[in-house]
Amino acid sequence: MDKEQSIISNFANKLNGDDGAVIGNVVYSKDMFVEDIHFKSHWLSPRQIGIKAMMVNLSDAVAMNATPRYALLGLGLPRNLSSKYIKELSNGLKEAASQFDTQIIGGDTISSDKLIISLTIISYLNAKNPLSRYGAKVGDIVCYTGDLGGSLKGLRTLLNNGKIGANSRFVRPNLRFEFTKRSAKWLRSGMDISDGLASDLVKITQNRGVKFNKKLSKIEFISAEEYEMLIAVPPRNIKRVLNQAKICRVKLNILGKIINERAKFHGKFSHF
Amino acid sequence: MDKEQSIISNFANKLNGDDGAVIGNVVYSKDMFVEDIHFKSHWLSPRQIGIKAMMVNLSDAVAMNATPRYALLGLGLPRNLSSKYIKELSNGLKEAASQFDTQIIGGDTISSDKLIISLTIISYLNAKNPLSRYGAKVGDIVCYTGDLGGSLKGLRTLLNNGKIGANSRFVRPNLRFEFTKRSAKWLRSGMDISDGLASDLVKITQNRGVKFNKKLSKIEFISAEEYEMLIAVPPRNIKRVLNQAKICRVKLNILGKIINERAKFHGKFSHF
Repeated sequence: MDKEQSIISNFANKLNGDDGAVIGNVVYSKDMFVEDIHFKSHWLSPRQIGIKAMMVNLSDAVAMNATPRYALLGLGLPRNLSSKYIKELSNGLKEAASQFDTQIIGGDTISSDKLIISLTIISYLNAKNPLSRYGAKVGDIVCYTGDLGGSLKGLRTLLNNGKIGANSRFVRPNLRFEFTKRSAKWLRSGMDISDGLASDLVKITQNRGVKFNKKLSKIEFISAEEYEMLIAVPPRNIKRVLNQAKICRVKLNILGKIINERAKFHGKFSHF
Repeated sequence: MDKEQSIISNFANKLNGDDGAVIGNVVYSKDMFVEDIHFKSHWLSPRQIGIKAMMVNLSDAVAMNATPRYALLGLGLPRNLSSKYIKELSNGLKEAASQFDTQIIGGDTISSDKLIISLTIISYLNAKNPLSRYGAKVGDIVCYTGDLGGSLKGLRTLLNNGKIGANSRFVRPNLRFEFTKRSAKWLRSGMDISDGLASDLVKITQNRGVKFNKKLSKIEFISAEEYEMLIAVPPRNIKRVLNQAKICRVKLNILGKIINERAKFHGKFSHF
């Protein structure tokens, strides 16, 4: 939304800006996941909603090269939800959290018109410094992990009244914890792809252009909520990073090189 | 809401239950403050909403004998809010935070139908152990700080289409940081009065009765969102605690003694 920048600037201080705030070796990240903003309730089962809400939040920690450990859960629950629905939602949240050995340690529950899942993730840095989305330089090689487009495909199925499984990328993104942890020291910067490659490229390149050496489809460019890693690698480290990807069995796509030009595309942040 | 207990039990583990979760010497507390649940938007100025939302959250930390340091802010903003409104809301949040030297370090902003303020407060314990709401024993003396009823009076004024000032207890509760910090080691248990004395007495006494030696009005019993401290004191420590109250210029009311009976009143949790 267009007011977000002005709000962030209202609270601007040296700790803000990245996916999470860092205090000592602890990373705090917070995201809200809200019915009719991020999903329609009839699209997803309560378990799927729980899985996705948690995964999206864990991704912030993973992208900063931190290990998530604890989660605080704020739930806004419409009064008409059954106990079974809430139980399954809880199970989805716990299932995704336990995949990353993360424990839900507290929170708050209120009643609300729309289903609201507000999560705060407490993570511990894997290295002295977090992996930042800032700092990429002209000449750095931009890469992304995995395959893009699956999230948008899932969304399109839902918009056409179809059903998707719990393993669809729209529900359960692939978080690249091992790869990020192992390769972070060789990276200049990194972030997860949440707004879509087109939009997030502008951020990782800091408004610079990219000389592409890979042809991408439109769906790969615009698919949001992918949560694959987008990284900038100094050329001297690219072999080491490719090697770590191989060890982790992660497909690493070399997208191109950052050039000294203004970015030509301007992604627009939007949910569905 | 009546589903809250079942939700908490879905996530039950040894870290849950009190106002905040404790990891090492860090306390994490999280509360949501939502339009039409906790307030009507026409009741309060955006600054007042910001002050109250922050104060309510800081109270959790104070009540556990912790010093709040950082806050994460999740904002759900209706699209029709002006930049001026958001700026004033931000100012209210920052004003209340700065009263407790607390810094807003990050968060998330989304658009939503209703105004949502979801805060996570990061605090540091003032002693080895947090002040818990559990553990009161038969014979302990139950006390509360300050005067009760001001919050409900403010609420009634608002319900009658009146206006209240930024210093009304409904907007700006008196958090008893110094007194709690100085007296915690002499207390058996303590909590803030958020659901009303009648309801919170059941919690602090663990469903036991109280032999009152103070007569209270109905409004003092039922006024919620007071955020004064409710404490249980072993009789041998009561003089020390009264002395700390005196030093801190906090009025400490001796309500009575916990007796070995079941509680006779059962408060009902409700917002307005």
